[in-house]
Parts: sequence; C-alpha cells; structure tokens
Amino acid sequence: MSLPPHHDGSALYVPEQEPALGQRVPVFVRVPRDGDVRQVHVRTTGDGEPRFVEATVDRRDDHEVWWRADVEVRNPVSNYRFMLTGKTGYRWLNAAGQIDHDVPDHGDFKLVSHAPPPRWARDALVYQIFPDRFARSAAADGRTPPDWAVPCAWDTPVVGRGPQTPHQFYGGDLDGITERLDHLDRLGVNTVYLTPVFPARSNHRYDAASFDTVDPLLGGDAALVRLADAVRARGWRLIGDITSNHTGDAHGWFTRALADVDAPERELYYFDVATGGGEPTYESWNGVRSLPKLNWGSAELRRRFATDPDSPLRRWLRPPYGLDGWRVDVANMTGRRGADAYTHEVARLLRETVAQTRADGLLLAEHGHDHTGDLDRDGWHGTMNYVGFTDPVWSWLRRDGTSPHPGEPSHRSADEPVPNFLGTPGGVRRRDAPAVLATMDSFRSLVSWRSYTHSWQLLGSHDSARIRTVVGDSARQEVAAGLLATMPGTPVVFAGDELGLTGVNGEGSRTPMPWHRPASWDVGTFAAYRALLTLRRDTPALRHGGLRWVHVDADTLVFLREATTGAVLVLARRAAGAPVRLTGLPPGTSGAFRTSGASGASGASGASGASGASGAGGGSGENAYGGAPPLRRAADGAVTLPGDGPTFQVWHL
Amino acid sequence: MSLPPHHDGSALYVPEQEPALGQRVPVFVRVPRDGDVRQVHVRTTGDGEPRFVEATVDRRDDHEVWWRADVEVRNPVSNYRFMLTGKTGYRWLNAAGQIDHDVPDHGDFKLVSHAPPPRWARDALVYQIFPDRFARSAAADGRTPPDWAVPCAWDTPVVGRGPQTPHQFYGGDLDGITERLDHLDRLGVNTVYLTPVFPARSNHRYDAASFDTVDPLLGGDAALVRLADAVRARGWRLIGDITSNHTGDAHGWFTRALADVDAPERELYYFDVATGGGEPTYESWNGVRSLPKLNWGSAELRRRFATDPDSPLRRWLRPPYGLDGWRVDVANMTGRRGADAYTHEVARLLRETVAQTRADGLLLAEHGHDHTGDLDRDGWHGTMNYVGFTDPVWSWLRRDGTSPHPGEPSHRSADEPVPNFLGTPGGVRRRDAPAVLATMDSFRSLVSWRSYTHSWQLLGSHDSARIRTVVGDSARQEVAAGLLATMPGTPVVFAGDELGLTGVNGEGSRTPMPWHRPASWDVGTFAAYRALLTLRRDTPALRHGGLRWVHVDADTLVFLREATTGAVLVLARRAAGAPVRLTGLPPGTSGAFRTSGASGASGASGASGASGASGAGGGSGENAYGGAPPLRRAADGAVTLPGDGPTFQVWHL
Repeated sequence: MSLPPHHDGSALYVPEQEPALGQRVPVFVRVPRDGDVRQVHVRTTGDGEPRFVEATVDRRDDHEVWWRADVEVRNPVSNYRFMLTGKTGYRWLNAAGQIDHDVPDHGDFKLVSHAPPPRWARDALVYQIFPDRFARSAAADGRTPPDWAVPCAWDTPVVGRGPQTPHQFYGGDLDGITERLDHLDRLGVNTVYLTPVFPARSNHRYDAASFDTVDPLLGGDAALVRLADAVRARGWRLIGDITSNHTGDAHGWFTRALADVDAPERELYYFDVATGGGEPTYESWNGVRSLPKLNWGSAELRRRFATDPDSPLRRWLRPPYGLDGWRVDVANMTGRRGADAYTHEVARLLRETVAQTRADGLLLAEHGHDHTGDLDRDGWHGTMNYVGFTDPVWSWLRRDGTSPHPGEPSHRSADEPVPNFLGTPGGVRRRDAPAVLATMDSFRSLVSWRSYTHSWQLLGSHDSARIRTVVGDSARQEVAAGLLATMPGTPVVFAGDELGLTGVNGEGSRTPMPWHRPASWDVGTFAAYRALLTLRRDTPALRHGGLRWVHVDADTLVFLREATTGAVLVLARRAAGAPVRLTGLPPGTSGAFRTSGASGASGASGASGASGASGAGGGSGENAYGGAPPLRRAADGAVTLPGDGPTFQVWHL
Repeated sequence: MSLPPHHDGSALYVPEQEPALGQRVPVFVRVPRDGDVRQVHVRTTGDGEPRFVEATVDRRDDHEVWWRADVEVRNPVSNYRFMLTGKTGYRWLNAAGQIDHDVPDHGDFKLVSHAPPPRWARDALVYQIFPDRFARSAAADGRTPPDWAVPCAWDTPVVGRGPQTPHQFYGGDLDGITERLDHLDRLGVNTVYLTPVFPARSNHRYDAASFDTVDPLLGGDAALVRLADAVRARGWRLIGDITSNHTGDAHGWFTRALADVDAPERELYYFDVATGGGEPTYESWNGVRSLPKLNWGSAELRRRFATDPDSPLRRWLRPPYGLDGWRVDVANMTGRRGADAYTHEVARLLRETVAQTRADGLLLAEHGHDHTGDLDRDGWHGTMNYVGFTDPVWSWLRRDGTSPHPGEPSHRSADEPVPNFLGTPGGVRRRDAPAVLATMDSFRSLVSWRSYTHSWQLLGSHDSARIRTVVGDSARQEVAAGLLATMPGTPVVFAGDELGLTGVNGEGSRTPMPWHRPASWDVGTFAAYRALLTLRRDTPALRHGGLRWVHVDADTLVFLREATTGAVLVLARRAAGAPVRLTGLPPGTSGAFRTSGASGASGASGASGASGASGAGGGSGENAYGGAPPLRRAADGAVTLPGDGPTFQVWHL
C-alpha cells in the first residue's frame, strides 16, 4: 500500500511561493506508482469558469509518479484542483483530500498573488506575554496603583471570575520583561508578543484609554524603547496588540463623543442604539459598556486609526519603538454589526497602512471563531487558529478518567467540564483523532497554504484555560507541545505554559510567573518545550515542509513533514496502544533512511532488511525527539512505530 | 429506527419565510423520540462570534419531538445551526446534515433578510424556447434570410459542431410561439423563457447587435408585444434573456468603440489586451472575437445597461412588452476578469434596477459552474442549477450497457462518452445514488433554502446535450423528469424534451420542434411530463415543502416533501432491485395514511396493520404518480416500496 496522491501548497509542490498576478507557475502532484492513475488534469476557475490543463509526468521513483502542470495565476486568489483519472473514472484531489463525487470550489487549492507576509514570520517562534503578570522590575515598587486597581502581591491567587477579576493588579512592567529575556532565549523563541500596553482601566488593557502612549504603570514609552532595543539586539521580533473593534470608555475619542453629540468623534462609535433605559446608549463589545464599539463606516475613524501619518497603527511600528507588527484584537468582530460588513475593507486598509509604514510588518488577526472567510483577501496575514488547531487538540487530549502518571497530582477532577474558548455549551468534548483531524482539515482546506502556515497555532492564551489544565498532566501536555512545534503554522507559547502553570479559564490563566519559586517549575515540561522549539528551529521541514498524514486511529496521529531539504516523521499518541505498522512510506525512506540534506543513495529499493536503519549522523531514521529507537525497516519495507503512550516522537528520514 | 433529526428552510421549520433585519423568528427542529437528544441549542454567529440559545420542546408526537428556539436576524444573511446534545456529547446539525466534529460555518442554515423573490416565482413551471427552432408563423416565409445565415428547411439536420453551426437559420419567430401556446398549456407550464430576441449575427443571438429592438427576423417589437399579451392572457409569465458579460461585435457600442479610441463607448470593453498580433486586441468571451467582453468597472456601462431610465434592462420589463424578468447570460463570468471582481456589485445593481422597474421582476443567473459564492448577496434571485441538479442527475441516470426496454432504439452507443456541460474531460461519469446525493447536498448546503428553491432545475438546455440522449431511453427520462417535477427548485423544460427529442451537445440539441410529424412524438414521454407537472402544480408540498431523504442505495432515491398542507413520498429507481423496506416514516404516516390537507385522526399509533392503507379519496397512501399500489403498513409499521425499475412513483401521505 502506498500513500494516497498528495499535493499541498508547500514548495515541494508549488516551487514558486510568491506568484504574481498573470504569472504561469508549475504545480506538482505525487501519485502512487502502484495506483490506477493514468491521466492527470489541473482544473482552474479563472474568471468564473473551469478550464482543464493536462498534466505530464515529471519524474518517477520506486513508489511514486510526480505529475506537473502549469497554472496561470489569473486572479488575485486562483483556485485549482487535480483531476485524477483511473480505470473507474475520475476523482478530484483538492485541499480536503480525494473526493469521488463533484463538489463546490471552496476546498480547492489556492494560489495567492497578494504581497506575501514578511519572510521572518515564516520562522517565528512566538512567546506571548501578558505584561501585568510577567515580571516586575525594581521600578514597579515605586509606582502608585491606580484608582481602579486591587493591588495584589505576586503570590495572590488570580480570581478567574468575579468583580475583582479585571482589577487585580500585580504590577508587572516592561522593564520586568526586558530583564527576563534570557528565559525566552533558553526556551528557544525568537518573537515576543505583548498584549496591550496602552493606558487603560483594567489589568488586561483591552479597554484602551489612549493609543498614543505606553501606560506609565508599565514604564511608559521609554520602557517600550528599552524592551524593543533588547529584543532587536537578540535578533528577535516584537509584536504589539491593538484593538480595532472598540476602545475603552475612558478613551478621549469616546469621552468627547459622549459629552457632545456634535463632536467629530461622535461618528467613530455607534450611538443611539435602541436598547431602552435612560442612559445614553451605544453599541459595545458583547454588551460590556466599558468597551464601546468602533464604527468603521466612519472615514474619520479610518483616518485617525490608520491612514494619518502619525496614527497609532503607524507610529508604534516606527523608531524608536519599531514594533514588527500587530496582533489585532477581536478582528473577527471588527467592522461587523448587523448590516454593516466592513471587516474585509478594514483588514485591507490596515494591511496596506502597515505595509506602507514598514515593508516587513506583520498583521495578525485574533479570531476565536471561523476565520476562513476572512483570510486570503489581502488583509490579515494570518489568524489565531483556535478553531483549526487549539480546539481540536484540546478535544483529543483533554483529561479523562485515566491518569498515565498516577504519581502526578491532577489539577482538576477528570469529570469536570473543560470550558471551551467561545462558550460552547458543555465545554470541550473529548474526541478521537479521526474527528479531530477532520476538524483540522475542514478549516485548513478553506484557506490558502500561505494563510494556514502563517496563522498562529496556540495551545491556549490569556483568553482560554491553560493547556496543562485542559489535558491534566505533563505527559499529554508534552504531546500537545509536540504538535504545536511540528505542525504547520506559527507556534505561540503563552508565558507560563512552559513551566506547567495551570488556569481554568482565560482570566484565571493570567497567572504571575513564579520566578521566585523555581521549585514549583515543571522543569521536565520546560525541557520538552525547549527541545521541541529547538528541533523546529533547526529543521527546515518543520518550518516550511508539506504535511502528509500517514496514519490516524483514535489515540494516534502520524504525519510527515517533507521538504526538499529533508523530511521528518512525527508520531503523537495520547495513550498506549498497539504498535503502528506503516507501509508505503515515500521514496526518501524506501531504502536506507535518508540523512536530512544528504545527497546519498536513497530511493534504492528496500534491501536493507530488518536491521536496515543506518546510524549515519543526523538522519537515516534517527530519532530526533522523544527517545524512541531509530526507525527500522522490515524485510517487506514496513516500519513499526512503538505503542507506548502518551508519547511524542520525531524521526529524521 | 426513526428518521434522523431534521431541519430545512421550508415553512414547516421556519414559519417566517420573509424575515426582516432585526426580527426575532422561531426555528424548529424535529428529532426522533427514541433518539438520545436531551438538549438542543441554536448557535448563531451575529457580528462574527457564536452565541447559543437553548431551545425548548414545542410538541411531541409518537415518533418525534419538535424543539423551538427564537433566532435574531442580526445580519442580512444570518447563519444558524443546531447543537444536539445527547449521552455521548454534542453533534451539529447544519444544512449538510448531522456532523460529529466541529466544522466551519459555510454549511450553516441561513436566514435571508434581503427582499424576497417575487411570489409567482415560487410556483413557476418554466418552458424554455430557442426562438429560431420553435415554430415559424406564416409571416416567416416572407422574410429574407440575413447575409450571415445558412437558410435551412425545418427538417434539415442540425449540425452540432461545424462552421455552419451558428449560422443554420430555420426562421422560427415569435408569432410562431404565440400560435403554439396551447401546446404549453397541455404540457402544464405557466412561464415562458425565451433565449435572446435581440438582433444579432447568429441563430442563438447571444451576440447582440443591439439591446434596443427585437430582431425583425423574429417579427420585431410588435411580435413580442403580441406574444407577451397572449402569455399574460393565460395568466402566465414571460422571461427574457440578456447578456451582461458581452455584446456581439456588431453592437453599436462596440463598433463605435473599435472605430475611435476616444469614443465614450471605449471604456465599456477591455481594449488593448496584450495578446499579440496586429489586430486590435480586446477581451472576449472565451476568446471568441465576436463576443467582446463588457467592463463593469465602467460607470458608463452601468448607466447604459442598467440605471438609465430607458436602459435595456428596464425598458423590456415595462409595457407594452412587460417581461416578468431576465435570465442573465454568463452571469458567472460577468464582471470577473483577472483582478476585476465586480460580479457581486453588478448582480446587486441589476437586482435593484429590476426591482425599481417592476416590483415583481425576477433576476435569474446563468451559472454553469459553482454558483454558491454568488447567491444570497442581494443580487441574483437564483441560478441555473447545473452543478447541483443537472450534473448529478445525469451522472446517476446516464446510459450504460443495459437497456430496460430492448424494443426501443438507443440513440447512441452505450459506450460513447456523454459530454459534460462545461467540458470536464471524459464527459459525464456514471455514479451511484449516494455520490450523486452527496454532490446535490454539497451545493445545496452552501446556499440559503430560498436561493436553492428559487434556482432553476433543468435536465438540459440549449447549452447541453438533451436528457433523452444522456439517459438513452424513455424509462430513465421519466425518472429524470420525475426528479425535475418533485424536488425543490423551479422546474424548467427545454422545448422538445417532452417529445423525446435528442441532441448530443448544446448546439446539436437546438432541434426544430417536429410539429408537422406528430408520429415522431414520444407521446408517452409527453404524457409523463404533463402528469408530473400537473402533480407539482396541484400539490403544495411539491412546490413549498421541505426535503427529507429517507433511503438511498446505488439505484434508488427515496425522499419526502412535507408541508403543513400535506406530504408526499417519492421513489426514484434507475433500475430494478430489491424492494425497499422503510421504517420510521414520520407521524403523518404512522397510522392510517393521512389524507392531504385532512384534519383526520392521524398520529394515532399504528393500529391499522398489514391492510392499513385506507382508500380515502386523494390521500391515505394513495399513489399519485407512477401507478404503484397504495402504501400499506406492515404490523410493525414498516412500509415496503416496490422493486421494479426504472420507475418513478409518488404517494400522498
């Protein structure tokens, strides 16, 4: 049995990763040599009608035939799919896989001719910091807590839900972060993402009182310059967080608009919304009155927020701050209200403005819900992929009645519901890997490979429970972190996850970093994160390779990441089970396992037999993570993966 | 076994069929009483985030529980889906069916608050006429064929592919149609759709030389008035055909644009397209130089074509012509070219202009490819549903090696490929019913129930092979016609199909009507079409009811059409097979079969036993089409459908 036909948007199949409108580019598809595919066409849908181009055989190896066709990038986003014709007729291959009946275009592969995201973003390893809770510098002690604050000592328990939740004030600041960058370096990240740093009336600062200055409680503008300089000095990147959906009700725009119906700021918001009562009514985020919603129908808003030469969107991207991009808060709701649908216009405007301000700026959308309609429109470079990564990983790995490490205390009862990020009743349902993969595929297949790989993968954030609490133990957290580090998409680590911190919901997971209690650190988890991030950094196939699924059963996911520079095989198990026997691994693994980047004699038919794994340095089936033995081929070419679990293993091929 | 949970957009489940923006409307879902559903939520996604509303039990019967929730029509098109929670967690119910993992929103149900299509369109039974080939009036003999024409006698064989194909001129005219309306009346249609009647230089007239007059070869403006009057006198509707994608190269707009680069008409087209050669270059439909493509980026085009008080779009909708709407040619390509994407703007503009001109005007898009992205945008009321109906029906019923009626001559060799409408290599593939239903569902689930039911179902047209040629015999044509008449969507009959005419491709199927050779008519096929269309006209559930699939196997499709006024059960078989035993038919059929519209004692638990079918007039399991015996219930409540085939049967429940 060979692996089924495969194509994805990675360079192995689409060598031109930045096609221009009007360009004709080759695309490749691999099909099993022992299958029935006799003819391959590529179907495009330029200008609304399908056209078929016949593909030709580009090359063959022992296992597979590679077909090639040239596709015109006729539209800004050009759809294509393969038609594989065999003895029994044709079937389609699109981003959702092989399909034996006719289907709409939404799952077609996509060539995107919009300007590409910045190069550095492809290799970013992001560390998310919630400033109030990360670290206090010495200067923090000298600051007076503001009137809204409930001052807390660093060890005060975080209250996840209650009146004091937004007001618990721990006093972390930017210089505190600057002082702790060595921790990030040890972990292996290269990009710092800060939740908001603007003045506000809450610890989370998503209720910006201004976009024009850094909160003095964080050290002010100068502290941001110091942090940005320190980040740059390490060759890293720094990303800010801006709210395009709303401001705080203390923002000058809003207070002026509220005070005077004739103020120019009035049109920036939605006033006079009919909600009854004597109070002035206005639209706000989810009905929270402290977060008045911005009205993107207003040209004045577009000017103030974005296009003005000194707009907040622009100024923080410039020296001396030099943020490398923005994470845009509640991008999914931005510009959406009833009949208003400005979201795509706003995304394009912000993208264009960012690009004008710094060519290598990143614009990343928060989207807790289905983001697929909002990408590939020359707006957001990517999204926070909660629905296509976080949720399915949670569903697969969430705690249950079993505890594979009985000695380890469980943080939560196994029966207690795990709250879902966006409030799905009943919380996170436990699902088997086929369902989880189906969900991942269903979201992935609707966006371009570029948007998929430039989206942020995360296991949790300041808006969700912590992964440790979701999965219940360090063993399954390691599996989760393994997927984070080896699947396509930009890995994002929420500060504290690497130490095994816990939290039952978004607010409750904003845990102060226990710098002063090193004995509480889960050093095993830290070591796993560090090793996994290092592996990703050192393995081009993990950053830029394609994705092929090799085996899925309830407790097991096995996939390949393949690039011209090498390939890896990844095994994730949430529980122990039967060993998995794989046949039909691709040519790179057909004989001796190929050393990553080597030009050796791979591709020869499997003669190495049961003891076939070569010990040649750095490749040839060697284990790259997890400690399992090197891969060995049986006489029939099959490879058997161990049945231990939970486990996460990576092998170089 | 009960039928699975069900909801669709019909009035049984969404009583408010024309919801307004901001309105809160009830939606209902039925779930089997013996299933495990304990709790039901409705999820909406207003303004980009999901919200859950808990449903309550509205009523129960012996078989099912009906849940109700109120949904706010928050956006012009508001998505919703059901969350069904049972013992093993939740599953989703969206327009694609029940799904046990998380999926994107594209398959959600949709409440559409745009102005609804005209009421008459819900009940339209359309007859498509290609004027040159339908009928000649006496006046036709006096006309001189134009310079481009190859005059043909009515019996001259149509050449489907060749230099003379567009020039074969048979001389059918509008008065010829007027004289033959009795034929349409006998058939049972109530809406006439004419392919273009504007002057042109081809027999198909899609190369309009003007939009300002009716071709004198067809009898001119006065003949259209006579036809429109005659159609109106019967209480019917008349629909025209307009090309928004291109004009003919003889059109005054184009000749002026071509002659003078400074002409105001120049911007109406795409000139100076770099295609090489010394000729003036311009974009044209599929490279056919006689069909220059219109550039909808031009405000002048929008004015001339649509918004001008006397624009062609408007004037033919007004007295004395009073067309009831337009079928828009090549709507799928209109406004699309490379980076230009005006299609949705144009659709909205044309819709708004039509509505201003006559409030009950219809705007129907030709779309031979995936239309799902172009509907529900306040533009086209519906589409020609080739991909979601024609193609799958063809795939299921296309001729094969068997001939169930050996006495009947086969028109084509069974092995010969059946060409696909849009040129899919290899032609129409024969598929079993599950694949065919999957295709229908995949397109249906992406559009609103409104757009689905207002789209045109067709078995073929002047642009495709004829259904008789595709399926090969009258028995399977009857099955196809049965699906046409009983599934949701507007049935469209291409003139001549009802007489069993044949044709191997679009041009070849433009067969003159054999009025003078009645012996050649397939009177059995005519009788079947007549009976089926009459059944649809007389059965509200077939026009406005919901759609529930009851049984599918390779050769069999069984579904229910259900409305508050009654329900029917439909059986379509392409071949003989085992009888189909159905359990769990809904309450309306649980005891004695309910008479359509009766208020009788149905819903009582099944006590009528093996001889349970009542003979009460007009209902109670009586056969309504096809001649099978009435439905009878076995002691266990099961109903067995006969195994003969090909067959098409309908029973009143």
